[in-house]
Amino acid sequence: MTVVRLTLAYDGTSFRGWARQPGQRTVAGLLEAALQQVLGVVPRLSVAGRTDAGVHARGQVVSFDVDLDDLDRLRRQLNSMLGPEVVVTDARFASADFDARFSATAREYRYRIDTGAFADPFSARWVWHREGELSVPRMREGAAHLVGEHDFASFCRRPPGDGSTSRRLERLAVGRRGERVEISARANAFLHQMVRALVGTLVVVGAGRLEPDGVVSILAARDRSRSPQMAPAQGLTLERVVYGRRGEPIGVPSPTER
Amino acid sequence: MTVVRLTLAYDGTSFRGWARQPGQRTVAGLLEAALQQVLGVVPRLSVAGRTDAGVHARGQVVSFDVDLDDLDRLRRQLNSMLGPEVVVTDARFASADFDARFSATAREYRYRIDTGAFADPFSARWVWHREGELSVPRMREGAAHLVGEHDFASFCRRPPGDGSTSRRLERLAVGRRGERVEISARANAFLHQMVRALVGTLVVVGAGRLEPDGVVSILAARDRSRSPQMAPAQGLTLERVVYGRRGEPIGVPSPTER
Repeated sequence: MTVVRLTLAYDGTSFRGWARQPGQRTVAGLLEAALQQVLGVVPRLSVAGRTDAGVHARGQVVSFDVDLDDLDRLRRQLNSMLGPEVVVTDARFASADFDARFSATAREYRYRIDTGAFADPFSARWVWHREGELSVPRMREGAAHLVGEHDFASFCRRPPGDGSTSRRLERLAVGRRGERVEISARANAFLHQMVRALVGTLVVVGAGRLEPDGVVSILAARDRSRSPQMAPAQGLTLERVVYGRRGEPIGVPSPTER
Repeated sequence: MTVVRLTLAYDGTSFRGWARQPGQRTVAGLLEAALQQVLGVVPRLSVAGRTDAGVHARGQVVSFDVDLDDLDRLRRQLNSMLGPEVVVTDARFASADFDARFSATAREYRYRIDTGAFADPFSARWVWHREGELSVPRMREGAAHLVGEHDFASFCRRPPGDGSTSRRLERLAVGRRGERVEISARANAFLHQMVRALVGTLVVVGAGRLEPDGVVSILAARDRSRSPQMAPAQGLTLERVVYGRRGEPIGVPSPTER
């Protein structure tokens, strides 16, 4: 048995999120069904980011144990079954102790907002269309108060099993491309719906309805009811998962990449 | 009564094309239903490009007569009804003799091909994923034989009512961006499925299965069975419609743009 590491991209629009749920169309459910067809068994999957309903991924990482030689063939077989909304962009062998969830040292998400007068039909599935001006300097000022190691209970929909809501937010950057405002967030790990709560708060700051330093008291309150709004799922994409100290990916390339 | 000119963008994936058909979901059918709600009547629409099932548009143009003052309000009302796949990007008054179809002096289409090992889920709806190398220089050489005023019967699925299959192809350009190969076509008007037949032929040239000057005899044959393949609808987008001699749009901006 060896550990296989897959990188996935998906348009989450028509999925009820990552995690398998009976009777629901989920990304894990689709991947498991495809793996069962190829391997004859359903391996136990470890995933770096359990994305919610409607959230997308460009660099989701999954690992599992399997007895297999030809990863390039596996990748092709899976892609022929998964269809246009989900694609395996990379398949490689990982070291025996690799685990997509527990080996990850950071996750990077990006949230895309279209502030223009109308939504572009070609990006409407993965951008939040919210007409109206947003001040990027104000949003950056607000974001600066949030970066660092904090108790993010005010930005957490559902606390994790171990109860700790402390996380290290390494980066919360706000940028603009034309009418698009994009927010990049990087942390060791995120709480449930944390990025959407952070974005929702920064949007209120950017729209002028909250002063940038108003986020300080929201953060300090450690009370979920204090974060003013949750940005919708569709604008959020898991861009990349980081492994290793310097962000180097663990594992060796699949045969076709060597 | 004044003439109104609308510019539309749409993701054509889930439509049976532009033209209204009983029992089918079409872009014109959706627009007419929305106009009926706003205006109380269904105006007679003239359209610049009758796009086929699955074909997209960024700059489709429609005109109709209506008794109305506030075009900005019309645009907003329509966009609230049309949903994320179809958007009115511009609404303006046009001169009394303007007709979206008959006033157009040129149409510009773009065809997008992804030659990479896997399809990107975020562009899969409007790009043709066709794995395998394409030679852009060969495709350009083939395209050069097609530009100009010709009888394009070999690249026409269904001849038009007047029977003439002669068109002036002003531009047929092939470019590459990473693994994406893009083909831009501009003509005074196009025959039915002409762009897809031209692209299908250039792809065969680019893949090395037809010499670039092989397109000369296909063109000369004036026989539809001679064009080697039809590229699928999903890669095709109507980008822009040109009005007036210098490509200047006719009409005045809507009040909000002045």
